[in-house]
Amino acid sequence: MSTSTQIQLVSRPVGWPEPADFRAVQVELADLADGEVRVANEFISVDPYMRGRMIDTRSYIPPFALGETMGGGAVGRVVESRSADLPVGTLVLHQLGWRDVSTGPAAAFSRLPEPPAGSESSVYLGILGMTGLTAYVGLTVIAGVKPGDVVFISGAAGAVGTAAGQIARLLGASAVIGSAGGPQKVELLTSRYGYDAAIDYRAGSVRDQLRASAPKGIDVYFDNVGGDHLEAALDVFNDGGRAALCGAISAYNETKAQPGPRNMSNIITRGLTLQGFTLGNYLGYAKEFNEKMAQWFSAGEIVYDETVVDGIDHAVDAFLGMMRGENIGKMVVRIASAE
Amino acid sequence: MSTSTQIQLVSRPVGWPEPADFRAVQVELADLADGEVRVANEFISVDPYMRGRMIDTRSYIPPFALGETMGGGAVGRVVESRSADLPVGTLVLHQLGWRDVSTGPAAAFSRLPEPPAGSESSVYLGILGMTGLTAYVGLTVIAGVKPGDVVFISGAAGAVGTAAGQIARLLGASAVIGSAGGPQKVELLTSRYGYDAAIDYRAGSVRDQLRASAPKGIDVYFDNVGGDHLEAALDVFNDGGRAALCGAISAYNETKAQPGPRNMSNIITRGLTLQGFTLGNYLGYAKEFNEKMAQWFSAGEIVYDETVVDGIDHAVDAFLGMMRGENIGKMVVRIASAE
Repeated sequence: MSTSTQIQLVSRPVGWPEPADFRAVQVELADLADGEVRVANEFISVDPYMRGRMIDTRSYIPPFALGETMGGGAVGRVVESRSADLPVGTLVLHQLGWRDVSTGPAAAFSRLPEPPAGSESSVYLGILGMTGLTAYVGLTVIAGVKPGDVVFISGAAGAVGTAAGQIARLLGASAVIGSAGGPQKVELLTSRYGYDAAIDYRAGSVRDQLRASAPKGIDVYFDNVGGDHLEAALDVFNDGGRAALCGAISAYNETKAQPGPRNMSNIITRGLTLQGFTLGNYLGYAKEFNEKMAQWFSAGEIVYDETVVDGIDHAVDAFLGMMRGENIGKMVVRIASAE
Repeated sequence: MSTSTQIQLVSRPVGWPEPADFRAVQVELADLADGEVRVANEFISVDPYMRGRMIDTRSYIPPFALGETMGGGAVGRVVESRSADLPVGTLVLHQLGWRDVSTGPAAAFSRLPEPPAGSESSVYLGILGMTGLTAYVGLTVIAGVKPGDVVFISGAAGAVGTAAGQIARLLGASAVIGSAGGPQKVELLTSRYGYDAAIDYRAGSVRDQLRASAPKGIDVYFDNVGGDHLEAALDVFNDGGRAALCGAISAYNETKAQPGPRNMSNIITRGLTLQGFTLGNYLGYAKEFNEKMAQWFSAGEIVYDETVVDGIDHAVDAFLGMMRGENIGKMVVRIASAE
């Protein structure tokens, strides 16, 4: 191990990102300074929020810098250490992103337990990590799901959506309805992820399908999509409904600002609450989530899937595939064992 | 007193209501039954929410029935009584609407104290009534205004807006910014209603003016207008901002559903909360409001204005004028003394 392959952003995409917006570089590995560790990554995460960081606009986190390596969640194992806190062999989580080898001060890495039997370390990027926590916070802290609620979740076959559907059920929802694109995903929502009903947004009007699936209306909407999905939810909401706005993937690659729902007045007449959130403000819920999720997980109450792309050189492909909805569950990049 | 003049809705308006959508009828007064009272109205209220009740759509209250007298708030004095609870001379509030004389069971009328010195009974339709309570609930329960917040209020020269600006200041807002149409109203916002800055939405971009008036951003938005005002607020919100959506008068007379804000994604990235409300769900706050407002009012902390139209036959004119923004403060119809 003498070099690291890293994927850098070299231009700010307009509309859909293209491979030419990125480059792969080989970086010589320097000797470790005192207190530093070297980590061979096992998996890196590609997530929808990264699209927002590729442009230079005011947001909750600064944009990715051009000519620097893409940041983001990753898990790996310490292979060289000059820190007593993280000996060689320790499994760690970090945010150093799209590279096969990560080097830095021990404080940049968080120690992880070994993954549960039957799981790989990628589980800490998904259902047992930020993705699961996002679903949990959105449903509990933001939308306040309570027993008996009818819950609608868009992007339901994605990383957050597959977690959210199951968590909503465990929180006592009386019915959980999901939307996804295409018959394969829609089938999985009910057969595997415990959704009571599923909508194929490509097959017709989201609103009409949602109305048919939720004849008594919905109480909670967990929004990963925005656009026509949010408009449909506003139409089908019961009085006092709550929406947790987590993502708007339908708009991320649009070059023009998209108009909002045409039925905003329902927010007033039905006394609805729409609350947006980004996980960074809710990391304090990680402990509570970890405890509950560990319990659910070990009781077999939670299933998950990952879509795995092999090789750091295919990180961009994985990201674009995720943006196109080619994943089921969490999309991750598996890093070939570093030699 | 042998007849009552009443204003009825005879057709459901499409777009702007017209006088032909209403008719005035003379109704013979029947003898009182046991437990009933007869009230000579002093003032009736015209309010933006009434536009919504003129159409037949799902809403938080049923639509006005065609061929029946328009409902709504009114104050008057008992002139004939067969109820010991409400002797002749009692000042009362009721919801029997657009008529000069109201007859009904005593339970349909709420006893009012005599108005404060210098005020007429119309004050119970405005600053000391539903209008003031709407402003109070929106700022406190819904938006959670706290000391130091920068607060933006649209429709600021209207009934709710003139109350809301002053209440926001009394709740400790560090700056209160209002919008209204035309230089006369805008001038009053700062000279009379305690707004720190005022925007004339007819004079240019709401967003640009709001940005200039709130260089540090806004924390709370009280929305009476919707449309470009809501979009402007979403652009100028600080992280964690809260919007109380009370009305959307910009859309009430549109024949086509209007698209929502083009910057809905700010709700996510800035962690904003938009909550709609209608007062009917928050009447439990009336006691708290009445106590606080009585204190503020008697301490001279609150000013108010009314735009008074004379005569039940001009109720429709008053309503349409209010929809066009011809009022400053609360628009009411004064009923000529019944003979």
